[in-house]
Amino acid sequence: MYKIGIDLGGTNIVVGVVDGENNIIGKAERKTNLPRPAENIFADMYAAALDALDQAGMSLKDIEYVGLGTPGAVEPESGVITYSANLFFHNVPAKQMLEELFGKMAFVGNDANCAAFGEYIAGAGKYARDMIAVTLGTGVGGGIILNKQLLTGFNGAAGEIGHMVIHVDGEQCNCGRKGCWETYASATALNRMTKELAEKTNDPILKKVIEAEGEINAKVPYQAAREGSKACAELCETYAKYIATGVLNLINMLQPEVICIGGGVSHEGEALLNPILEYVKKESYTRDNAEDLQTSIKLAELGNDAGIIGAALLYKNG
Amino acid sequence: MYKIGIDLGGTNIVVGVVDGENNIIGKAERKTNLPRPAENIFADMYAAALDALDQAGMSLKDIEYVGLGTPGAVEPESGVITYSANLFFHNVPAKQMLEELFGKMAFVGNDANCAAFGEYIAGAGKYARDMIAVTLGTGVGGGIILNKQLLTGFNGAAGEIGHMVIHVDGEQCNCGRKGCWETYASATALNRMTKELAEKTNDPILKKVIEAEGEINAKVPYQAAREGSKACAELCETYAKYIATGVLNLINMLQPEVICIGGGVSHEGEALLNPILEYVKKESYTRDNAEDLQTSIKLAELGNDAGIIGAALLYKNG
Repeated sequence: MYKIGIDLGGTNIVVGVVDGENNIIGKAERKTNLPRPAENIFADMYAAALDALDQAGMSLKDIEYVGLGTPGAVEPESGVITYSANLFFHNVPAKQMLEELFGKMAFVGNDANCAAFGEYIAGAGKYARDMIAVTLGTGVGGGIILNKQLLTGFNGAAGEIGHMVIHVDGEQCNCGRKGCWETYASATALNRMTKELAEKTNDPILKKVIEAEGEINAKVPYQAAREGSKACAELCETYAKYIATGVLNLINMLQPEVICIGGGVSHEGEALLNPILEYVKKESYTRDNAEDLQTSIKLAELGNDAGIIGAALLYKNG
Repeated sequence: MYKIGIDLGGTNIVVGVVDGENNIIGKAERKTNLPRPAENIFADMYAAALDALDQAGMSLKDIEYVGLGTPGAVEPESGVITYSANLFFHNVPAKQMLEELFGKMAFVGNDANCAAFGEYIAGAGKYARDMIAVTLGTGVGGGIILNKQLLTGFNGAAGEIGHMVIHVDGEQCNCGRKGCWETYASATALNRMTKELAEKTNDPILKKVIEAEGEINAKVPYQAAREGSKACAELCETYAKYIATGVLNLINMLQPEVICIGGGVSHEGEALLNPILEYVKKESYTRDNAEDLQTSIKLAELGNDAGIIGAALLYKNG
């Protein structure tokens, strides 16, 4: 059984053909070219899908379902994109449009939720009952799978884990609140803290790494710490504390079997993960439980493919 | 169809007979008398159940199921109380013990989760798909119902919403973390803040109210605010902000249809609720949604009976 999975982003539309073992066997892209009417964007999804099918040596008749992951909030039953600030969409009947274009049953979900669902079914959450995906990028995104079901909330807007406040009256967030997790745990936050440190200390190792990288990015403080900068080692420790604070909040409230951490910063691997594990071991409400009754914290495995796979598997949700 | 619901607390064992319309039609109590062996406590549950049945004019043959709400973590499948600090329990096979005592099928859950489930089925959450109960008492407790199911987590320990940090490096919590919601939003926290204010300001209205009450309790700052104390009005506003911070975190992450607020402080009614609603209206991630696509925030309706009703209805979960 084959499915089409579509990852609609602000910059690119990526479409994949997904097989019964959750592998992407054909892939094609188009530019999103915002702003333009939804109809035109959907026509490009269809065109890219035909390319992806061609690449896989297939045609539409081999396809059972179509799934779309989109920025914004999706009304779960109707598959209407009620609102997307990024796409300038307002009440776009995405499910209906896809079903008419493809002549197949279609499913629509939020893009971060789709990526989490893909990671759950085919990546770090394989065989687990529940998983929360945490994506550390420009913001902090994610998705929550409980009892094998992707949580969408009664209004399709659940999963905004980056907008939980961990520091009341803290850093201003774009969402209007102060002290959201994403203002402390995103790559953007790490870059801000690295920049502040560079300005404050004139740390020579940090300075050298910034020059070598040509910019301040998430790799910089980790690289400088590896080269011996104590100030950067401390910064990475503080950053781990901020990530762990949100991770621990999720554990204490939801007790998922797995939490997986992805996004650009997660390329630091164990240098990122290990200090988080230390905090969780020390502070989790269930730290005295047997090991197999404690949440496992892992790195995400699928990267950008998770969104396509999760969209293609949306039919399995509910 | 009648059920037995048991609310096991550190001080009292309260047992109720619950009818098909979720009314308690007979009730009896015993002292918990800690510490003593689990067998003896369970024998008192059984004795109290027979009293409650007698009061309802019934006998055990009228009963279909038995449900128990207990402090601590419960392994969902086996109904073993893996650990309860309050009861000094370690791996007590509660489900099995109840089934042997009563000769009926038995279900076991965490007490805060049972209270949430009762409130969901028969109180503030009636007819909703999802509800989160927030209980503001000595601590901040609660329970999470999503897609009509009580969330227990893969290890039976989910729902510790009071132990989400809202202020990184903030007030020390008993759980070992710093800045947990319950250190800012519990009745205990309100009392602490009221005491600090009394010491700092010598506010004459506050002083008078404390004298009239004979102690500092959760009613004091609200009463003093009603009598014209500006400092207390500000304190109540700050307290509302702390409650709203956690409520907003729950909304942004989980988007439940209903959040209900109970516990001692909730007796202040709209004086407590209205400023929380203002914060939510201003800061929720879904504040631009149509009203019917936003979480409703309500006061809890059932008080202490929620725990008995929820325990009696545990058989409905899953």
